[in-house]
Amino acid sequence: MSTTTTTWQELVTDKKRRQTEAIPKSWLISTPPPSELIVTGVPEACGLLTEKEVLITNTEVVLLLEKLASAEWSSVEVTTAFYKRAIVAQQLVNCLTEIFVDRALARARELDDHLKLTGKVIGPLHGLPISLKDQLRIKGLETTMALTGLVSPGYVSWIGKYAEKNSVLVDILYECGANPFVQTNVPQTLMWPETFNNVFGRTANPHNRSLTSGGSSGGEGALVALRGSPIGIGSDIGGSIRIPAAFNGLYGLRPSYGRVPYAGAVNSMEGQDSVPSVFGPICNSIGGVKTLMKAIIDSKPWLKDPLAVRKKWDEEDYSLAEHGHGKNLVFGIVWNNGHTVPHPPIIRALEMTKAALEAAGHKVIDWLPHRDKELCDTVYAIWNAGCMQDFNSVTSLTGEPLIDNMLLEAASSEAVVAGFRPPLNSGATAFELWQLQKTKLKLRQEYLDLWQETSKMAGTGRPIDAIISPVAPFTATPHGLNKDASYTSIFNALDYPSFVFPVTRVDPVKDGKKPPHQFLSPEDEANYSIYDPETFLNAPVSLQLSGRTLEEEAVIAMTEIVDVALKTQK
Amino acid sequence: MSTTTTTWQELVTDKKRRQTEAIPKSWLISTPPPSELIVTGVPEACGLLTEKEVLITNTEVVLLLEKLASAEWSSVEVTTAFYKRAIVAQQLVNCLTEIFVDRALARARELDDHLKLTGKVIGPLHGLPISLKDQLRIKGLETTMALTGLVSPGYVSWIGKYAEKNSVLVDILYECGANPFVQTNVPQTLMWPETFNNVFGRTANPHNRSLTSGGSSGGEGALVALRGSPIGIGSDIGGSIRIPAAFNGLYGLRPSYGRVPYAGAVNSMEGQDSVPSVFGPICNSIGGVKTLMKAIIDSKPWLKDPLAVRKKWDEEDYSLAEHGHGKNLVFGIVWNNGHTVPHPPIIRALEMTKAALEAAGHKVIDWLPHRDKELCDTVYAIWNAGCMQDFNSVTSLTGEPLIDNMLLEAASSEAVVAGFRPPLNSGATAFELWQLQKTKLKLRQEYLDLWQETSKMAGTGRPIDAIISPVAPFTATPHGLNKDASYTSIFNALDYPSFVFPVTRVDPVKDGKKPPHQFLSPEDEANYSIYDPETFLNAPVSLQLSGRTLEEEAVIAMTEIVDVALKTQK
Repeated sequence: MSTTTTTWQELVTDKKRRQTEAIPKSWLISTPPPSELIVTGVPEACGLLTEKEVLITNTEVVLLLEKLASAEWSSVEVTTAFYKRAIVAQQLVNCLTEIFVDRALARARELDDHLKLTGKVIGPLHGLPISLKDQLRIKGLETTMALTGLVSPGYVSWIGKYAEKNSVLVDILYECGANPFVQTNVPQTLMWPETFNNVFGRTANPHNRSLTSGGSSGGEGALVALRGSPIGIGSDIGGSIRIPAAFNGLYGLRPSYGRVPYAGAVNSMEGQDSVPSVFGPICNSIGGVKTLMKAIIDSKPWLKDPLAVRKKWDEEDYSLAEHGHGKNLVFGIVWNNGHTVPHPPIIRALEMTKAALEAAGHKVIDWLPHRDKELCDTVYAIWNAGCMQDFNSVTSLTGEPLIDNMLLEAASSEAVVAGFRPPLNSGATAFELWQLQKTKLKLRQEYLDLWQETSKMAGTGRPIDAIISPVAPFTATPHGLNKDASYTSIFNALDYPSFVFPVTRVDPVKDGKKPPHQFLSPEDEANYSIYDPETFLNAPVSLQLSGRTLEEEAVIAMTEIVDVALKTQK
Repeated sequence: MSTTTTTWQELVTDKKRRQTEAIPKSWLISTPPPSELIVTGVPEACGLLTEKEVLITNTEVVLLLEKLASAEWSSVEVTTAFYKRAIVAQQLVNCLTEIFVDRALARARELDDHLKLTGKVIGPLHGLPISLKDQLRIKGLETTMALTGLVSPGYVSWIGKYAEKNSVLVDILYECGANPFVQTNVPQTLMWPETFNNVFGRTANPHNRSLTSGGSSGGEGALVALRGSPIGIGSDIGGSIRIPAAFNGLYGLRPSYGRVPYAGAVNSMEGQDSVPSVFGPICNSIGGVKTLMKAIIDSKPWLKDPLAVRKKWDEEDYSLAEHGHGKNLVFGIVWNNGHTVPHPPIIRALEMTKAALEAAGHKVIDWLPHRDKELCDTVYAIWNAGCMQDFNSVTSLTGEPLIDNMLLEAASSEAVVAGFRPPLNSGATAFELWQLQKTKLKLRQEYLDLWQETSKMAGTGRPIDAIISPVAPFTATPHGLNKDASYTSIFNALDYPSFVFPVTRVDPVKDGKKPPHQFLSPEDEANYSIYDPETFLNAPVSLQLSGRTLEEEAVIAMTEIVDVALKTQK
């Protein structure tokens, strides 16, 4: 078809045409004008979904699985319902990359047939549609299906690269009976906390389309927020699950390195194994996150991925055996990281959470920042040691330009580089990289020692049980202005599992701009200056709970406790 | 005392003087002449140890712990017995670095007093003397004790660096009731499979002093072989526990990354975290290895070391629940790695082990080499990416020369660089390092997939249970000739736990030189040419058993089965 002289623009045009053709014409809706910012009500109001499809798509994962397992709802009807809603979402916020309706429905039919024939589910996720960030490879079942198995995460240069086999996680999801049904948008290079690339363009936030959906799993965040998917898989190297989860008002877990298999996925900076990316779920409920994590771990991913940690799902940890069985927990709370003070709605969310936990009989003590900026800067320098050569090695294949900002005006000449993605230099030597890695380890040790020392003040005979902190010093920002990922990156550096949970929404009445405080840094002042409750209107406000490395079970259980406390308080 | 113009030679002289002064004069023996090669009988024959001290030092760890816990033997008498024997060992093979008799006896007295007073042991290792490779830091209890807490692993430049606190593993050993009582010799830089440095010189093999004790934990290997310590801690980045264990006829376990805490230890190439070094036990018995590993893991090292894996000791894994409960095991056996054919005694040990396992009802199938050399070379290139800068940064502090060979004639001008330590170049960029790390991961994936595929031929419905392979293509070599660590390094690359066990000894009658075979490589031919059973006389012949990552419990249990099978056969 195309010769070697195809330009990158032509590749994009062709790819977009194929994407458009993959959408059933009957699923196109009359879209609201761009000026209509809040679009979360559109899927139910647009008339495409039947009443039952609305019911299905509003059902949480755990109940959905029960109805699928009992055959009360077929996988075909559940998949159809979510697919229609996903296509509506696509028209509202541009969150999808790969669309393969026929294949997903064929899989759903197989699952239904199996259940009918045997009376048994394939596995713990039987019939469940699941969306996947556009890094996970899905092997094409039919070679004639042009879009199947295509992987092009954010790079024009990866258009047309068909997967020869599934990523390990995709294999596991299939074995568990799930039905991967769409893939979702990412930023070019994956190393941005927003979602924009030269192939698919930008994914907006459905709670306010003038705001970013976050990144790099921004497609997932926007899709799940519109309930176009019951649960999705994102990845997180510096906040890429948690930022979209927080910005879209969802639950999102960043597991520890290796708890969820990564093998066979497409990635940036392969071979950088000091602060690696991890996969994890983004969902409307904690129950969905727990169910998915348990299903993945129970499948023994270490037999398929050499980096997957051989560690069974631990019910004792989930019962909080090492945390007083969940009674009289003690939380460390982070009001700010010593560098940038969060916007008023974030502070309000911290206050709400503290009050709710205290009302539920728990204790909340201040967790003071400890060289947070130094640790984050070390992580950024580790990535920066070779990222430019990595990015160039991909973009040079087609000549697509490297994106240097994510402002709304793509023509903007001003480079706005997120803290998440450091200013790019020419890299470092291996020995210099080792020195950075040595510094990181030293700081991790200091954090661990500090955590242990809290046993002196917790009053329970044990150290604090978890840390509650902002996900960012802001809620979803206007496009191109998410410049600070340090509140999330720090837990990647520490390798603490971190679970984002929604608390409230930006409210102009409650979250008025405060008079200037004593600024902690120039970045703090800049962050203060961009706040205005009207700009951030309706943005979800979320926090994260972080525990010890490889303590996913306890982190999930403690987030359930916080969530119940918050809901009780309301 | 000394000014900044002190030469490195003066530092060495001073350090050696202090070491000599630390030895009680009454413990000096009349040493055999250098021409007496086999010295394993000397400790019992030299007359320094009483009959009871001989009995104590010949007792295995598990029984020793019982006698200590029941106060049948006091820690003071046990520590005294081993200390005397360690000092004899020092005079025979030069295996010690730090000697601190008073401190160790004071600790032993405290332990005895505690037991007498409370009727309870401090922990599972109560009263047990333990030797530590000269990387582990021991905090000085008294500042007047010049040698206490000194850490100088192989570098002149580290003379006089006193530890301000214990390494995490040392803290844990103390908490468990153990009594660290000597530190043991290492090669300069730690990156050699033999033991020689500018400070303490060379450690010889007590089974044949014309042969190397191996490295880098060669001091441990020689000391434990002479029963100058009931159990020791070595470290292994490419074979450094297993080579000395094998060369000295001992049991030695290389655990997976992070199973045993490393925090707070002195190391080469800090920040190199792609193929890290790990600590593990070297012992005369499997029981000792198991007891020590369980004690360390039960102490929850992840609360003290951020890289220690949060994974409890798993009795289910130890019961071989995933390996048919130990019945009808299937072993893959490695006859050679496709690059170098092992010497006749190693082949004989493989044959003996295969026959013993088959006689015990197990199955042994061939495990074919798969890109072994490529994987090892990748690991060496990863270290090589920055090691020269690392080494120079230390040696430049005093001007001590970097050792470039370990031949007996130190004046030799020929550089003999071990495969373990690659020819040094000027390093690599971080991006180049990432490409090496990417290659390594790809090969690890291939190995895992191959292992899984053995389920098709094992006949048990599961893949092979473990791999049995040579530890090196030779037994202990003459000094300076250990040039190939690929048989061990491959399991560091794969991060498989590997347990070395003794099988037999070089026997001129059974292990005559074979006619030349079709050589697999120039290295194979060179290896063939150095063999002659008289040169290797009395050298222990050992093998290693390797399992899946983080499967230490099962690897220990399976090595017990192999050990029993071999002993039954004899």
